[in-house]
Amino acid sequence: MKNYRIGIFGLGTVASGLIKILKKEKINYQNRFNVNFELSQVVVHDLQKKRAPEFDGLNISDDPAKIIEDPAIDIVIELIGGKTVAKNIIEESLQTGKHVITANKDLIASEGRKLSRLAKEKHVGLFYEAAVAGGIPILRSLSNSLASDEIEQINGIVNGTSNFILSQMRQNKISYAAALKTAQEKGFAEADPSNDVDGIDAAYKLQILADFTFGKQINQRDIQMGGIRTITQADLQDVTDLGYEIKLLASATVISNKLELSVAPTLVPKGHPLASVQNENNAVFVNGRYSGGLMFYGPGAGEFPTANSVAADLIELTKKIDQPESFNTNFSSDLTLAKPKDRIASRYIVFNVANRPGVMHKLSAFFLMSDINFRNIRQYDPVGDNTRVVIITYPASDAQLNPVKTTIRKARGVEIIHEFKLLIEPKEVTNA
Amino acid sequence: MKNYRIGIFGLGTVASGLIKILKKEKINYQNRFNVNFELSQVVVHDLQKKRAPEFDGLNISDDPAKIIEDPAIDIVIELIGGKTVAKNIIEESLQTGKHVITANKDLIASEGRKLSRLAKEKHVGLFYEAAVAGGIPILRSLSNSLASDEIEQINGIVNGTSNFILSQMRQNKISYAAALKTAQEKGFAEADPSNDVDGIDAAYKLQILADFTFGKQINQRDIQMGGIRTITQADLQDVTDLGYEIKLLASATVISNKLELSVAPTLVPKGHPLASVQNENNAVFVNGRYSGGLMFYGPGAGEFPTANSVAADLIELTKKIDQPESFNTNFSSDLTLAKPKDRIASRYIVFNVANRPGVMHKLSAFFLMSDINFRNIRQYDPVGDNTRVVIITYPASDAQLNPVKTTIRKARGVEIIHEFKLLIEPKEVTNA
Ligand SMILES: NC(=O)c1ccc[n+]([C@@H]2O[C@H](COP(=O)([O-])OP(=O)(O)OC[C@H]3O[C@@H](n4cnc5c(N)ncnc54)[C@H](OP(=O)(O)O)[C@@H]3O)[C@@H](O)[C@H]2O)c1
Ligand SMILES: NC(=O)c1ccc[n+]([C@@H]2O[C@H](COP(=O)([O-])OP(=O)(O)OC[C@H]3O[C@@H](n4cnc5c(N)ncnc54)[C@H](OP(=O)(O)O)[C@@H]3O)[C@@H](O)[C@H]2O)c1
Repeated sequence: MKNYRIGIFGLGTVASGLIKILKKEKINYQNRFNVNFELSQVVVHDLQKKRAPEFDGLNISDDPAKIIEDPAIDIVIELIGGKTVAKNIIEESLQTGKHVITANKDLIASEGRKLSRLAKEKHVGLFYEAAVAGGIPILRSLSNSLASDEIEQINGIVNGTSNFILSQMRQNKISYAAALKTAQEKGFAEADPSNDVDGIDAAYKLQILADFTFGKQINQRDIQMGGIRTITQADLQDVTDLGYEIKLLASATVISNKLELSVAPTLVPKGHPLASVQNENNAVFVNGRYSGGLMFYGPGAGEFPTANSVAADLIELTKKIDQPESFNTNFSSDLTLAKPKDRIASRYIVFNVANRPGVMHKLSAFFLMSDINFRNIRQYDPVGDNTRVVIITYPASDAQLNPVKTTIRKARGVEIIHEFKLLIEPKEVTNA
Repeated sequence: MKNYRIGIFGLGTVASGLIKILKKEKINYQNRFNVNFELSQVVVHDLQKKRAPEFDGLNISDDPAKIIEDPAIDIVIELIGGKTVAKNIIEESLQTGKHVITANKDLIASEGRKLSRLAKEKHVGLFYEAAVAGGIPILRSLSNSLASDEIEQINGIVNGTSNFILSQMRQNKISYAAALKTAQEKGFAEADPSNDVDGIDAAYKLQILADFTFGKQINQRDIQMGGIRTITQADLQDVTDLGYEIKLLASATVISNKLELSVAPTLVPKGHPLASVQNENNAVFVNGRYSGGLMFYGPGAGEFPTANSVAADLIELTKKIDQPESFNTNFSSDLTLAKPKDRIASRYIVFNVANRPGVMHKLSAFFLMSDINFRNIRQYDPVGDNTRVVIITYPASDAQLNPVKTTIRKARGVEIIHEFKLLIEPKEVTNA
C-alpha cells in the first residue's frame, strides 16, 4: 500500500465534497488501487468560520506555509479559485516538488501551459479535470482517447447557469429576467451573473478546450464573445418554429488550417444531440476526422460531481507517480486565427424596421451588395410604427456580412437586434 | 523516438481503417508522442483476395507464425473476430511477451478477465477500447475517470443496428421488416440479423461494461434477454403518446447490493438523454453516486471510428510501455445477482383480449392478486373479435409479476403480446 499525504487549500463547495468522498471511499481506494490518501492539512481563508461537524478533527489553518513548506506533503489540491493567490500556491508547490491538482479554470485558462511546463521540469504531475465541465471527464478523454484523432471542431455547452436560464425560458415561456431570478433562487446564478451570462466563464473553459484539441494556448481576446441577456421569448418562438434551439456555445473550429473561436448564442438544429441538453447540464461535442461526432454529457458543476473529477485526478496521478505526466504537454500546433473571410456560417438576424413601403427592398439590397442569400424570412405584424423581421441566411463570411452591418448601422428605419450564427458542422464547411 | 513493430491480424473493415490512420498520422504521432509505429506484418485468411491498391507493399501472409513467432514484433493487433482462432492468437501473443490490442467483444465478453490476468503475469498490456461502442471512449473513461466513483447503474444503446431499425420505424412510420431491409441495404445489418436484433451483440458488450463498472465477470445466461423483432407501429404510437421512446437498452443496475442485468426493449422518458440517440449511433449513460448522470455518445461502429479507438489504445499502451497496465484488472466485487423480488420496474404490457364483457374485470383481478397498481390504461377499438389493451404499471418486482403472467397464460381470452420495462433511474429505486 502506498501512502500519500495531501494538503488541501479551501474548504468550500468542492473541497467539502472531496473530503467526504475520500473518507467514504478510503477502504475502496485501498483495495482497488492500493493507495491510502492521508489528509494532512487544510488551509482556509477565515479560521473563525464555523465548519460542518464532520470536519471536526481536521487540521485546519490559515497559513499556506503549513502545506507548502511541509516536506511530508506529497500532493497539493488547490480549491480556492481566483488568479493571484492560487497561482502562487500552485507555483510554489510545483517548485518544491509537490504534485498539484486544481479545479481552477480562471487560472488554467491563461497559465495552463506555463504551469504544465514547470510541472514537467520538476518531474511532478499537474491535473485539473474539474476545471472544464465539472463532473464530465472531457479533458482526460481529449488527452488520452482522442489524442490519436485530428479534431476538427469542438462545441461545448459549458456554462450550466446560462443553459439553465435558456432552458427555463424555453420550457416555461418566461422572460430572461424571470429565469435569472429562478436560477439565483436555486443557487445556480450569483447576485452578479455577468461571468456566466456574458460568456466569460465559458470562454475560460474554451481556452482550455482549445489548447487540448488544437495545441494552442489562446487569449480570451481572440474569442468572439456574446452573451444571453438580450434573448427574448420572440427569439425562442422564431427559432423553435424554424427547427432550432438557442444554446450558448463555446466553439473552436479549424477551417482550412485557421482556428475560429467564439462563445455566443448559437442556433442548434433540433436533431443535434446538443439541442437536447437541458437545464444546468453541460455537454461537449467533438468532431474528429476519424471518430466522427462524439458527445460527453453530464453535470457541469456541483459539490460531488466536481469533487469526483478531483478524486479521479488523484487516482490517475498516483497510478504513475514515478513518471507523472500532466495533460497534453507535448502538443502544439501552428494554427493561425481565422480572419473575417474564414468565419463562415449561416446567420439568424433579427431586425427592427420601420413599417413603411420600401424597407424590405432596402434591406435586401444591402445583403445583395455582399452577395448573401436568404434561406428563411419572417415579417411579423407591426407593434406601433415598427415591425420585427427575422432572416436566416445561407452560409456567409464575416467579411461579407461586416459591410452590410456597417451600412445598416448608418441607414434609417432599419436596426439589427441580434445576429447569431447557426451551428456549422465540419462537413458543411468542407463542402462550402 | 521509440520504434514499435506491429503485427495485425485481419485486413477487413477495422484493420483497413487502422492502417490508413497509421499511415496518415505517422508524422503527427512522431511529433506528438515521440513514437513510430512500423507495420511489420499483416496476416489474413485468404491470400488470394484482391486488396485495395493502397495496401500494395504491405507484408501480407496467411501464416499466423509470421507474427506470433517473430521476436521483433512488439505489439499484436487482433482484428479478425470470433472466439476460437482469435483466442489462440491472443493467448500465444501474450505468452511470448507481446502486447495485444483487440476489438473482439465476443471473446473479451467471456475471456476478458482471464486474458487480462495472463497479460499482467507476462508484464504486457492488453487493451480493447473498440470492443464496446466502437468509437466512443467508454472503457477508458470507466477505467480511468470513473474509477473514483461508485457506479450505481449503466444503460447503453450499444447495438447500432437495432437502434437504427427502431429509429427508422419511428421516424418513417414503417414496419420492422421494412426498417430491417433499409438497414441491410445500408450495410448496417447482416443477412441474418439475429445477433443484432435479438440482443446477443448488446449482451457481449454488457458483459464487458458490467465487468468494468461492477468488477464482475458475468455469464451471458445471467442476462435477461429480449429483442426487437416483435415491436410494431402500434407500440411506437402508444409509447410516443405516453411520452416515451423504445430503445434496446443493455442495463446493469445495483439494487441493495444485488446486480440486475438485462438487454431488452425499454421505455425511456422523452426528456432523458438516451431518448434522443438516433439511428446507428450508440450511447452509454452512467449513473454514479458522485458524478451523477453522465452520457457518452457517438458512432458505435464503422471503419474509422472503430479504428480510432484501436489507435488510441496503441498510443496509451506506448505511453507507459514499461509498466503496461490492462484495463481494470485490480477490481472485483462480491455482488450477487438480483433475484426476481429485487428486479423492480414499471412495466409496459400489451394484451390481446377478447372483446366481451368481464375481460377487463378479470385482467385487473390478476394484477390485484399481486398488489400491482396501474398508472396508465388504454383500450383500443376492436379488430375482429379481439382488442388491444395497453397497461403501464407502477413499479413492481418480477416476483410480483411472474405469477400474474402464469395465471394469464392459463386464462382464456387474454394473451400477453409484450412486457417491456420502463427505465428506472437509481433515485427512483432508492425511494421505492
Ligand atoms: N462549485 C462548483 O461547482 C465548481 C465547479 C467547477 C470548478 N469549480 C472551481 O473550484 C474552485 C473552488 O470552488 P468552490 O465552489 O469550492 O469555492 P467556494 O465554495 O467559494 O470555496 C472557496 C474556499 O477557498 C477558501 N479560500 C479563499 N481564499 C483563500 C485563501 N487566500 N487562502 C486559503 N483559502 C482560501 C475559502 O475559505 P473560507 O471557507 O475560509 O472562506 C473557501 O473555503 C474554484 O476554482 C472554482 O472555479 C467549482
Ligand atoms: N466493423 C465494425 O464497425 C466493428 C466495430 C466494433 C468492433 N468490431 C470488431 O472488430 C473485429 C474485426 O471486425 P471487421 O468488421 O473489421 O471484420 P471483417 O471486415 O469481417 O474482417 C475480418 C478480417 O479478418 C480476417 N480473418 C478472418 N479469419 C482469419 C484467420 N483465421 N486468420 C487470419 N485472418 C483472418 C479476414 O481475412 P480475409 O480478408 O482474408 O477474409 C478479414 O480481413 C471483430 O472482432 C469485430 O467484432 C468491428
